[in-house]
Amino acid sequence: MALLTKKHLALIRSLSTRHGRKESGLCFCDGIRSGGELLTLRSDLVEFLLVREGTLLPECAKQDQLKDKTFFLSGNEFDKIRNTVSSQGMIVVSRKPEMIPPEAPLADPFVLVLDKVGDPGNLGTIIRTARAAGLKEIFLTEGSADAFTDKVIRSASGAQFAVAVRSLGTLEETAERLHEKGIKHFFRTTPNGGKSLYREKLLYEKSAIILGSEGSGADQLDGALDVVIPMPGDAESLNVAQAATIVLFEYVRRWDENSLFQD
Amino acid sequence: MALLTKKHLALIRSLSTRHGRKESGLCFCDGIRSGGELLTLRSDLVEFLLVREGTLLPECAKQDQLKDKTFFLSGNEFDKIRNTVSSQGMIVVSRKPEMIPPEAPLADPFVLVLDKVGDPGNLGTIIRTARAAGLKEIFLTEGSADAFTDKVIRSASGAQFAVAVRSLGTLEETAERLHEKGIKHFFRTTPNGGKSLYREKLLYEKSAIILGSEGSGADQLDGALDVVIPMPGDAESLNVAQAATIVLFEYVRRWDENSLFQD
Repeated sequence: MALLTKKHLALIRSLSTRHGRKESGLCFCDGIRSGGELLTLRSDLVEFLLVREGTLLPECAKQDQLKDKTFFLSGNEFDKIRNTVSSQGMIVVSRKPEMIPPEAPLADPFVLVLDKVGDPGNLGTIIRTARAAGLKEIFLTEGSADAFTDKVIRSASGAQFAVAVRSLGTLEETAERLHEKGIKHFFRTTPNGGKSLYREKLLYEKSAIILGSEGSGADQLDGALDVVIPMPGDAESLNVAQAATIVLFEYVRRWDENSLFQD
Repeated sequence: MALLTKKHLALIRSLSTRHGRKESGLCFCDGIRSGGELLTLRSDLVEFLLVREGTLLPECAKQDQLKDKTFFLSGNEFDKIRNTVSSQGMIVVSRKPEMIPPEAPLADPFVLVLDKVGDPGNLGTIIRTARAAGLKEIFLTEGSADAFTDKVIRSASGAQFAVAVRSLGTLEETAERLHEKGIKHFFRTTPNGGKSLYREKLLYEKSAIILGSEGSGADQLDGALDVVIPMPGDAESLNVAQAATIVLFEYVRRWDENSLFQD
């Protein structure tokens, strides 16, 4: 059985800071669900696994190639590592997926751009929902949250190991580069004003749909059309993760409508 | 200027426990946004307001009837009251809205039922989204989270003071009572199996749509039809708040389609 060294412990501690994560290039995945996704999707990225004695390990944690990387700890030792109450007895430390180079082509029929979305829970939820909707990538502008902190990984259920998180600079720079890659229409969601997104026929046709954080909304962008999510109620706005969900699943609905699925 | 008494302080402390909240019948609203909603929607419920010196108060906090109920505290005093970092300098302590009696008729064309949704953030987000979609009430079954803890109020941006949160017992009891009130169709969302909800024409016709918590899903219910949210991606499931958002805004989309809105 492999033994945890002081070097491992120092590494784990360093991952609790942004600086430490940046320096090591590693991330920290706490919990059975998101850890399980990581092990299933990208076990090649795993550096090591920490398991609290007595934890019922999912099948995906029993791969041969993980054997030498799995460390069993007593309850005391395990709990010392993390001071979160949400830990479920398994922690995966892994490398981040390879960055997709800026010049790489686009993978999906339309592009979701998150402009300075800073809340980790919202960002994670959006990545998870994008995966469910079938997107292969999403774009974050400069000033968005880091998609590989443990809170974002937990909220995403590890979906950032299935959906590529790409960055092309500020909103303006991102738009410019997307245009070069063939994006023809830019839509900006707003809490009020603009055409109903349900009525916009070109919404998913070689387009980029931009969502901003709640506080400030997406930045202005020359040439972008405003689309609104109609709200019959008297609410001021929606949470950005809910707005993204509506955008993503309106795409799924149109796909469902045109597909030959059996009822 | 009114002065805070020891009685006030003891009351505030007691509100941090479930027992204390139940006993007092009061709730605790921390933050400018959700506090502002409460003051705008239901200032009649307010017991008192705590304000950190130097906080820029929203207009809704300057109502005449609130003058004698507003206490200004020094930064130190204010911070002692709460050990959350999210506090924005205004805390509203208020009574909960009146419970709607079980025999009251239904207020909306369809009914959203949350079956044992325990996560406060998800519950709050769903209440906020239900408000945006124009619902006047939602139903929680026994075993759901308390809709009036400060975490739920924050996630809902105070929407529980606009949308009635009703309870009619267990899922089975709830269904029975809803049936007596004229609900004809019961739909249960599942992560897989069942008809696409986008293709279900009766989804919002005198119907109840039941969503369960992620872990276990909604309980089985005799006579309920399963509907599924199609997921082209390879994700296992959606967060329950995202599933609820899709259900609520498919309703809005159909409403938008049939309305005579100008583009």
